Amino acid sequence: MSFNFKITHTSGSARRGEMQTPHGSVETPAFMPVGTQGAVKAVTHRDLDALGAQIMLSNTYHLYLRPGADRIARLGGLHKFIAWNKPILTDSGGYQVFSLAARRKVHEHGVTFRSHLDGSEHLLTPEIAVDVQAQLGSDVAMVLDECVEHPASHERARDSLALTLRWARRGREHFLKRYREPFSEASGEKGSRYLFSNPGQAQFGIIQGGTFPDLRAASVEGTAAIGFEAYAIGGLSVGEPIPLMYDITEQTAALLPADRPRYLMGVGTPVDLVESAARGIDLFDCVLPTRNARNGQLFTSQGRLNIKNAEFADDDRPLDPECGCYTCGHFSRAYLRHLFNANEMTSGTLNTLHNLHFYLDTMRRIREAIVFATLEELRQSYRRIFPSQPLNNND
Amino acid sequence: MSFNFKITHTSGSARRGEMQTPHGSVETPAFMPVGTQGAVKAVTHRDLDALGAQIMLSNTYHLYLRPGADRIARLGGLHKFIAWNKPILTDSGGYQVFSLAARRKVHEHGVTFRSHLDGSEHLLTPEIAVDVQAQLGSDVAMVLDECVEHPASHERARDSLALTLRWARRGREHFLKRYREPFSEASGEKGSRYLFSNPGQAQFGIIQGGTFPDLRAASVEGTAAIGFEAYAIGGLSVGEPIPLMYDITEQTAALLPADRPRYLMGVGTPVDLVESAARGIDLFDCVLPTRNARNGQLFTSQGRLNIKNAEFADDDRPLDPECGCYTCGHFSRAYLRHLFNANEMTSGTLNTLHNLHFYLDTMRRIREAIVFATLEELRQSYRRIFPSQPLNNND
Repeated sequence: MSFNFKITHTSGSARRGEMQTPHGSVETPAFMPVGTQGAVKAVTHRDLDALGAQIMLSNTYHLYLRPGADRIARLGGLHKFIAWNKPILTDSGGYQVFSLAARRKVHEHGVTFRSHLDGSEHLLTPEIAVDVQAQLGSDVAMVLDECVEHPASHERARDSLALTLRWARRGREHFLKRYREPFSEASGEKGSRYLFSNPGQAQFGIIQGGTFPDLRAASVEGTAAIGFEAYAIGGLSVGEPIPLMYDITEQTAALLPADRPRYLMGVGTPVDLVESAARGIDLFDCVLPTRNARNGQLFTSQGRLNIKNAEFADDDRPLDPECGCYTCGHFSRAYLRHLFNANEMTSGTLNTLHNLHFYLDTMRRIREAIVFATLEELRQSYRRIFPSQPLNNND
Repeated sequence: MSFNFKITHTSGSARRGEMQTPHGSVETPAFMPVGTQGAVKAVTHRDLDALGAQIMLSNTYHLYLRPGADRIARLGGLHKFIAWNKPILTDSGGYQVFSLAARRKVHEHGVTFRSHLDGSEHLLTPEIAVDVQAQLGSDVAMVLDECVEHPASHERARDSLALTLRWARRGREHFLKRYREPFSEASGEKGSRYLFSNPGQAQFGIIQGGTFPDLRAASVEGTAAIGFEAYAIGGLSVGEPIPLMYDITEQTAALLPADRPRYLMGVGTPVDLVESAARGIDLFDCVLPTRNARNGQLFTSQGRLNIKNAEFADDDRPLDPECGCYTCGHFSRAYLRHLFNANEMTSGTLNTLHNLHFYLDTMRRIREAIVFATLEELRQSYRRIFPSQPLNNND
């Protein structure tokens, strides 16, 4: 079973579709919970299953450093290692190299950096990013790109984009040559240098270009010319104004091949999901629902709620009376506030179950709204529920 | 529905029974997972349910300080507050006052101490321990006792026991007068000073006397003369040699009323459970399975296993091939080691699920062995599996 994408309904720019992968299909628009180190923080896989998560994102940088991609390959690949049988998307490792690692230095060849764990020196190149993700055997691999700082000048963004395009070409060539040509050395057999490869793995290109429409257009043109299974929009939700993020998303999405999934990386708030799906985005990932949950910040049908607040100390109502999650079905705000204040681990678990339920339910509502052409009502409803400036994932 | 105890089978000194409480019955011998602050660390109530936990222990000291017994009473009692509908046993708070609180001072009247959370000053008396547990509305309340340091001289243990007996008398009188006499002010109606009371709550007395058989005998005599629904053996597993602990347990259990449950407080290892059940103990609690799980120490049918060990880095076998828990059914030692090393919260969850399953399964095996008169084989089997000096819960 290999990668495929089929659009079943459209409504304006929005698309309802189905993304086929070697480990099953994903209804789009879809949100991918983030399992950084091969586990979504505070919840078990069976919880994710029950919540209706259809795909997980995992971070190559973290897994490469610990427990190591070689080890995961020897143990049969990431799906087997973490015992998650549904689709997995892995990033290239680049984002964490640029945000977490120490003493990084970008060359034409790639980027050298020191591990944030033990200071050991490593090299990441477009080819290595491909090889490592082949070892992991994810269903979707991302090509290595350069992440520019925000704000960046037009010149800086242009130069960075040029490098990203050269890296994209190298990454794609390496992917096709080593993992797609018949009788390649990476057939997945034990004993070969590359112990594991998911033969149906797809590779997504990444659109960069900062907040400059001309560079975004050039990025789409160059990246689509290389040709990937699908395309992601990177470099957004990094501090730019939200309306600008929506504008760039809208312009870029409109230029991308209509028959391929569009993935908006690292976005976003519930409003961002609805607004971006309306602009033609099919895939999302963000740490917001899980990280905020552990910090006591909850998303509800009545807006945001901070469980730390004293007003909830004697509140015996559920977080969200309209929510069908395990947490809302059983526990009061007073108890959840107590668990948070008492630093109980189940605080993180119960809050995460709720926030992920809210996010995955938002995606179900988006998909339904596309089918029934009610996306405009859903947008207005989410804008009413979350009237303030949407949270950025860097908050 | 009120408190009751029925022995259905015996085998030597061991008893298979059923303890009835206002929130359902408990098959004995039983192990009570510890939910210190109203939650068993790292697992949800539905996990506990699925594991077959029939009763939870919760700590009065912690709940009294945060979120406060008044608040829990206003919210309908501990069962409602934490949304756990099965039996709950609460301790008196004394043990934590003696082990956690600062600047404690024991008087005839009670003990003053400062909160380990905010330094605020509090007073705990036998009467207050009763009132606070009445507010919590647990199914079993423990009387306040003095916990002596180990080792203690005969004189010190004797004097402490005398105080514990005077406190026991006061605690029992208060319990009966305020919560058992008809038309008492604590009828559970809103508006009364005592907002909540579980009308079927039982009160257990506690046997002290250190490692001195004559004092243990005197403690049983004095405590049984006061008369409680059941009796606990306290002051063991505090650093004394294990064989001595078993001897004191055996002697003390033999003196206790045969028709009442016997609860061995804070014990112990899997071997301790089997050995003590064979000596006539019906109830256990211990933080060992949950705390050790979070530290990567696992109990298996092949002995103890430390998941941190490098030998498990590439081990794709389950923790315990004979175990039927969720963790063993899905995840490898290599993955569990990775989660532990990566400090992932699910490490604590998956390890706790396993250790609690092992403990609760041990209790099932003990109950079965009593029915089929095979307890001696079970003892020998557990001694083979865990040959070394058993872990103490202070390890």
